[in-house]
Amino acid sequence: MNTKCIRYDGAGGIEVIRFDCKSRHPASGTEVGISIAAVGLNRGDILQRKGFYPAPKDAPQDIPGLEFSGVVEAVGKDATKFAIGDRVMGIVAGGAFSSYLNVDERLLLRVPPALSLTEAAALPEVFLTAFDAIKRSNVTKGGLILLHAAASGVGTAAIQLCKTYGIEVLGTTRSSSKLKTIEGLGARAHLIVDNTFQVQPVDGIIDFIGAAYLKDNIRALKVGGTLVLVGLLGGARGEISLSHLLAKRLKVEGTVLRSRSIEEKAELIRAFSTEGEGYFNRGDWKPVIHGVYPMSELGAAHEEMESNTTVGKIVLCW
Amino acid sequence: MNTKCIRYDGAGGIEVIRFDCKSRHPASGTEVGISIAAVGLNRGDILQRKGFYPAPKDAPQDIPGLEFSGVVEAVGKDATKFAIGDRVMGIVAGGAFSSYLNVDERLLLRVPPALSLTEAAALPEVFLTAFDAIKRSNVTKGGLILLHAAASGVGTAAIQLCKTYGIEVLGTTRSSSKLKTIEGLGARAHLIVDNTFQVQPVDGIIDFIGAAYLKDNIRALKVGGTLVLVGLLGGARGEISLSHLLAKRLKVEGTVLRSRSIEEKAELIRAFSTEGEGYFNRGDWKPVIHGVYPMSELGAAHEEMESNTTVGKIVLCW
Repeated sequence: MNTKCIRYDGAGGIEVIRFDCKSRHPASGTEVGISIAAVGLNRGDILQRKGFYPAPKDAPQDIPGLEFSGVVEAVGKDATKFAIGDRVMGIVAGGAFSSYLNVDERLLLRVPPALSLTEAAALPEVFLTAFDAIKRSNVTKGGLILLHAAASGVGTAAIQLCKTYGIEVLGTTRSSSKLKTIEGLGARAHLIVDNTFQVQPVDGIIDFIGAAYLKDNIRALKVGGTLVLVGLLGGARGEISLSHLLAKRLKVEGTVLRSRSIEEKAELIRAFSTEGEGYFNRGDWKPVIHGVYPMSELGAAHEEMESNTTVGKIVLCW
Repeated sequence: MNTKCIRYDGAGGIEVIRFDCKSRHPASGTEVGISIAAVGLNRGDILQRKGFYPAPKDAPQDIPGLEFSGVVEAVGKDATKFAIGDRVMGIVAGGAFSSYLNVDERLLLRVPPALSLTEAAALPEVFLTAFDAIKRSNVTKGGLILLHAAASGVGTAAIQLCKTYGIEVLGTTRSSSKLKTIEGLGARAHLIVDNTFQVQPVDGIIDFIGAAYLKDNIRALKVGGTLVLVGLLGGARGEISLSHLLAKRLKVEGTVLRSRSIEEKAELIRAFSTEGEGYFNRGDWKPVIHGVYPMSELGAAHEEMESNTTVGKIVLCW
């Protein structure tokens, strides 16, 4: 039996995106077979297409896709958490752009009843990344987080989580048109012009930009503060003032989901699920979706994400 | 009543070191009045003499000295922890090069019976710094720490602490003559030539060098590892590869004792005292002392420390 999938024919522009088929295997061990409903598009998919972000060794090398939603169609003999017909969402190190997937059950979350499968496909990467980044920032109730790219998928998720935790958010964007979205979610908004900014002292920072903001980030942190780096859209090599690191006793921490071991991902998913289910069902947390497109428009969706004009997630449906 | 003290007449070479007097005040509040027996010399004292490390606002600006030992001579009306005649050691943000000091009792530790007052003056800065740095490295039993300047005061303390904790240490030095000291304390030793090194992957790093080692340090860390920076003898501005920080999920953390609030210092001292007293009395931990000199030889002691030939601490006695 065959499964539809997206392949990249080498590295390049959207012309390398190809619709293809692959053979389907039965779910084995703790795997669950999932009929995929929708796939969330990520910056990682774009970087992989350009050849800048190769898949980890244990993931398909030429089939992109890091998160998905769908319905359980088969259950491996050692899988105990889900039954056929269950609505699930999850993360993989690659290969999510398929119409059918076998995934270890530890990487799956149940879709909260309040959410559609389309909304669910926009959830795992951004909410897990935001959840993890906030924990790593060590900022708690009453603290202030500086959140860059606050209108992005991870940004909009982080604002919602911080609101629940009683953490104040100062959210930045480089597009004046996105200021209202950030404020609408309950954060204060700050427009960044010419890649430089000066803000009030903050307890922690969640940043996707990297080198371009490094100096101003270090300056913005209070004594004992933490800069959590979850992306490097503004460059990967930067000069750092170690004397500020010492004098203010700062931490700089890099993190990504994709390269983690299955055990580490499972632990994060477990912690997030325990805390999150109620919030999604009550509507306190909700993925912010920029657009939902049929898979046939994947190339246009790539271009839209690269234009930096989107607010929240882009979701592709089979 | 007058107290002897050392003053720096501006910034410069050892010619700015001057013997002087200051007036003595009665111990007030939670202060304890101490007749100072000995003072440990620190890199911070040298940097302050050169004008590179000004004292914090709440410390004497021109009297150096960060650690001391002595005997309690007076007790403020709100001080409850020590009695007249007690042997104490402690840290201050400056001013320890005095023959009499009023110090908040929270910054004092009782001198373990197994140690002399001279040994005690060599203890607080290096053991507290090492204790704190090991905790911040997140390396625990069975792990491997790369420890730079392992024959230094903090280095020799860190090796002893790690041995107690069951942490393996790979200790570096730039002087082949110091390799034996490092091995004698129970660590493996590695000679660094031309400021560049390549070692096996490590769980954590404690570094005093900074910029000159930054690239090799980042390369040496395992996934999830932490680089703790406690000094910047090799430069304060360095280029950092943020992509390695993300891909390996690394932490870089700067830390110093001197600029911390009294509450933070008190918390560290409390944690260390609880754990450390038994180890000192059993002889598991012992300050490594390079030399003990009369205060009149302070200038020569500065020059000796600057020559980078010392192993362990230099102590000055009144």
